[in-house]
Amino acid sequence: MTKPLLQLALDHTSLPEALEAVKVLHPYIDIIESGTILCVSEGMKAVRELRTLYPDHILVCDLKVADAGEMLANEAFNAGANWMTVICAAPLATMASAQKVAAARNCEIQIELFGHWTIEDAKEWVKLGITQAIYHRGRDAQASGQTWGQKDLDLMKQLSDVGIQLSVTGGITPEDLHLFCDISVKAFIAGRALAQAPDPAESIDAIWGE
Amino acid sequence: MTKPLLQLALDHTSLPEALEAVKVLHPYIDIIESGTILCVSEGMKAVRELRTLYPDHILVCDLKVADAGEMLANEAFNAGANWMTVICAAPLATMASAQKVAAARNCEIQIELFGHWTIEDAKEWVKLGITQAIYHRGRDAQASGQTWGQKDLDLMKQLSDVGIQLSVTGGITPEDLHLFCDISVKAFIAGRALAQAPDPAESIDAIWGE
Repeated sequence: MTKPLLQLALDHTSLPEALEAVKVLHPYIDIIESGTILCVSEGMKAVRELRTLYPDHILVCDLKVADAGEMLANEAFNAGANWMTVICAAPLATMASAQKVAAARNCEIQIELFGHWTIEDAKEWVKLGITQAIYHRGRDAQASGQTWGQKDLDLMKQLSDVGIQLSVTGGITPEDLHLFCDISVKAFIAGRALAQAPDPAESIDAIWGE
Repeated sequence: MTKPLLQLALDHTSLPEALEAVKVLHPYIDIIESGTILCVSEGMKAVRELRTLYPDHILVCDLKVADAGEMLANEAFNAGANWMTVICAAPLATMASAQKVAAARNCEIQIELFGHWTIEDAKEWVKLGITQAIYHRGRDAQASGQTWGQKDLDLMKQLSDVGIQLSVTGGITPEDLHLFCDISVKAFIAGRALAQAPDPAESIDAIWGE
């Protein structure tokens, strides 16, 4: 498979701290994500500043939109994002309105997979023109001990088969990477593992298994 | 039933415009909501300014949290919110961590009902100590023609019966109000209908059916 991209998730509450992390790591990454926490804390100022400082990186605005797809897509893309996340529980109408804004600007919507969803839902997303989703163990699920299992991998394979490219996140270690070899992985997303690493370059090599 | 509270949803992208709307309407409302769009656009500055200007109103931070419950609850409540919304698709672990922060501060979590959820889910929320939810036709669903129907009312009644108080929103007209008489309605939420009304006081009387 094509070598997946590497995405740095900025889950800081302070924009200066987030910018400090990107300053160190930007040569090693393909995608910068303004995480939900950063967006909530600082608003679209965070996305605007990241776009100004890093004009050539793919920039993700992780809003996990649940309603008002058109308005929030305009907010995110006006601020300079290339991709914006919509939560899988959002009504199809919300996904459609966000996707319409995205498509008109050569931007993309990513569906954030959380809680209840089915492969039938995924087929509907593809019909709308949405071909990216984010698969993860969430922060809280991770903290409560859930791990990558065959059930996750089977679901990811099914999503790949209906035409969804996946970005994968949630405490991925180098030992986990082989698990994803049959799956259409667009990007691996790392947050604290990179941002807090004493030697980020070494951590990135570890993530790529190089 | 007790007279429900009236909540003004601020769905502006500009904080000055939102503050202008509250300035006119605050004497008539019980609850001020910093809507998702306002939170996204301006960050927690919006909540902080509303708290400073209106110390006695209930203040809702409508983040529709899907992960990182503890961090986002701290963000919202540190900024001065009394209530924060969590999306129904969030993992129970997220709801639990948000609720723990809320309970320790005498604040409350509201579950935002969107997409797939069941009454069994609602019973789990109540077990966590969460007793509020928001029931609505979303902006996009509304635009695509969905209306209040018996199915909505039956679901709301079932939620009431398991101990969930509901805030209800989504293009409610005075003619709709009688539909909610069997339901434990905590608040009616109005946004554009109030904020853009030529005579807000008259609109409020209309909403209350007075």
